[in-house]
Amino acid sequence: MHLFLCLNIRSKWGIFQRMPGMKFKLLEKDQDSKARAGVLYTDHGEIETPIFMPVGTAGTVKAVHQRELTYDVKAQIILGNTYHLYLRPGLEVLEAAGGLHKFMGWSAPILTDSGGYQVFSLAESRKISEEGVVFQSHIDGSRHHFTPESVMDIQRSIGADIVMAFDECTPYPCERSYAKTSMDLTHRWLGRCMQRFDATEGKYGYQQALFPIVQGSTYKDLRQDAARFVADQDREGNAIGGLSVGEPAELMYEMTDLVTDLLPADKPRYLMGVGTPANILEAIALGIDMFDCVMPTRNARNGMLFTSEGILNIRNEKWKMDFSPLDSGFQSYVSNFYTKSYLRHLTLSKEMLAAQIASIHNLSFYLWLTGQARERILAGDFSSWKTEMVEKVSRRL
Amino acid sequence: MHLFLCLNIRSKWGIFQRMPGMKFKLLEKDQDSKARAGVLYTDHGEIETPIFMPVGTAGTVKAVHQRELTYDVKAQIILGNTYHLYLRPGLEVLEAAGGLHKFMGWSAPILTDSGGYQVFSLAESRKISEEGVVFQSHIDGSRHHFTPESVMDIQRSIGADIVMAFDECTPYPCERSYAKTSMDLTHRWLGRCMQRFDATEGKYGYQQALFPIVQGSTYKDLRQDAARFVADQDREGNAIGGLSVGEPAELMYEMTDLVTDLLPADKPRYLMGVGTPANILEAIALGIDMFDCVMPTRNARNGMLFTSEGILNIRNEKWKMDFSPLDSGFQSYVSNFYTKSYLRHLTLSKEMLAAQIASIHNLSFYLWLTGQARERILAGDFSSWKTEMVEKVSRRL
Repeated sequence: MHLFLCLNIRSKWGIFQRMPGMKFKLLEKDQDSKARAGVLYTDHGEIETPIFMPVGTAGTVKAVHQRELTYDVKAQIILGNTYHLYLRPGLEVLEAAGGLHKFMGWSAPILTDSGGYQVFSLAESRKISEEGVVFQSHIDGSRHHFTPESVMDIQRSIGADIVMAFDECTPYPCERSYAKTSMDLTHRWLGRCMQRFDATEGKYGYQQALFPIVQGSTYKDLRQDAARFVADQDREGNAIGGLSVGEPAELMYEMTDLVTDLLPADKPRYLMGVGTPANILEAIALGIDMFDCVMPTRNARNGMLFTSEGILNIRNEKWKMDFSPLDSGFQSYVSNFYTKSYLRHLTLSKEMLAAQIASIHNLSFYLWLTGQARERILAGDFSSWKTEMVEKVSRRL
Repeated sequence: MHLFLCLNIRSKWGIFQRMPGMKFKLLEKDQDSKARAGVLYTDHGEIETPIFMPVGTAGTVKAVHQRELTYDVKAQIILGNTYHLYLRPGLEVLEAAGGLHKFMGWSAPILTDSGGYQVFSLAESRKISEEGVVFQSHIDGSRHHFTPESVMDIQRSIGADIVMAFDECTPYPCERSYAKTSMDLTHRWLGRCMQRFDATEGKYGYQQALFPIVQGSTYKDLRQDAARFVADQDREGNAIGGLSVGEPAELMYEMTDLVTDLLPADKPRYLMGVGTPANILEAIALGIDMFDCVMPTRNARNGMLFTSEGILNIRNEKWKMDFSPLDSGFQSYVSNFYTKSYLRHLTLSKEMLAAQIASIHNLSFYLWLTGQARERILAGDFSSWKTEMVEKVSRRL
């Protein structure tokens, strides 16, 4: 109770002062894989890597209260979507609030994507040019223009701790010629992003960092070129984009493996949009430190639970009379308090509480899983644990 | 954190043993009105009256976690709907779980209605006879039969602490002849309810109590006849039904006033389905102890907030840049933590968190309001406070 009430003191926001900015400390490397454990320091607190970042698209991780993110999910950083936040509530509101942290009441770190992915997947129409992208809002059809420069400015206004470069995320499959042309454009855009970002300052008294994105589709040489290009920029962290877009998992691992060989070891590496629990464990073994994905929350809303024993569809008849907890494999209020039978009833009855319980459970599980991976890396037995765990979390119950 | 984790110990359910059943203790009577403060003792704990009971239709107070009901809303008793629970999850599941308390994880008292009201308002078709009501489920069209006896048996299976008699809730307006015929049927049904209830026992080791319901539409003499009939049954508490169904508020108060003059003072009185904050304060002044209503949760889902300063529609443009808390007039996490601007954004964006926040806020406010009324009754200055408060909580902000 005390811990919850203390969140209530909004004046705590007043403590942020200009600080030295982001630092990454590598604590341990696994002997049998490329897995690493580290700490990423930001002005909004520390992030223990490897880490999963819950997706909070429009300034809310769907169906989850902020204090639940902190105390149940144990999220250390969440993600916001620039495209959504720019359209609604809009920059006027976000700036008047003092940035997204204050607007939504989240005092830990935030990462925002660049909006590029959503422009291509959500906007009603879009036209890409050297200058940027013109698109129509999926909400009201209004026309907008994103450029590398404007997207940096928008992310300054949102005030994320980690700002992503404006890129083009190529689809899968993708012709080699298009992948090359697109990658070159992404690199030119990165130059413009960095120029704008470095010429401006954070608006709210704390430091922000810009992460460039490695593209190159599924072409080994393009991925390597992109990784070298990105590594050369020497930013505070680096991301891998354009994967988990429909390609086979083996291809995703292959590309990730190539890229992590080339990205600097002393910077955090973020694999965008990945993935299933098994995907995450495999990518940790390939040297990835940060993950985000809508899967734990979106699938929760459809009744799919990721548990320490495997994957289950809570709608199935087999859970009707199962009064055992959702998952007693780890510490989590909702996972231990609510039963499978009760959650099945809520899901079939289309009760909101179903999405609330399943979302907290799935996110808690994802954070528990990356936390366990970190412990195993620090303890020196990650690889054997991972092999066993990948099998376990992939099972269908 | 500790308080929340302790909810986690399901073995606590094991503590219930056969106890002496329900008792009501009147602590204080207001000098200038019929308002009373009391305590209702049940095998699942005490209820401090006057009290508002959040509606948990299908085994969940919509959008609110059980621990939020306890620690944020400070609910002391919640209501379940027999019609909904009977259809889904069904008695087989509820009995196997050990009753609704265990099924949903709620250890405080529960009251269930008799299902009659829902049969008339929700079922696809229904046919009333002396025997009972035949109806078709709104979920799958299946045919079912509710009788006074079966409804007692169903509520035994659900395991509510307070069980309501099976009645016919007359609509408004209602012809006098229909109101009289219906009231007589309700009284014959009450006799059958009591006979069945008294011939059976609770299934889970704790006591249940049966409350009869005063009907009689808006006819003074019928209401008085019904109140006398109900009072004569000498049950552990009494309810007033068939009000708050569209009649003017003054008529509702008039009928309530007549009835509370005739119901025994040493038994709790429950005014069913009431109402707005002002309705509740006025009815407390007329001697009502217990209330339930879907208004705080249903209106929350439409963006209407009841606050200590008045009523507001969070969708309004005027809250766009208002970064003040939802309501700082009383202790409540969501009311003090989230801002009007943020809730407006969530509501316009159709985010689930909007309903979650607004539901907890409205319920917290209702419970705070009945709690304040109780304090004022105990302090001896209820009536002057009520006059001031009715004006305040009725304002449109």
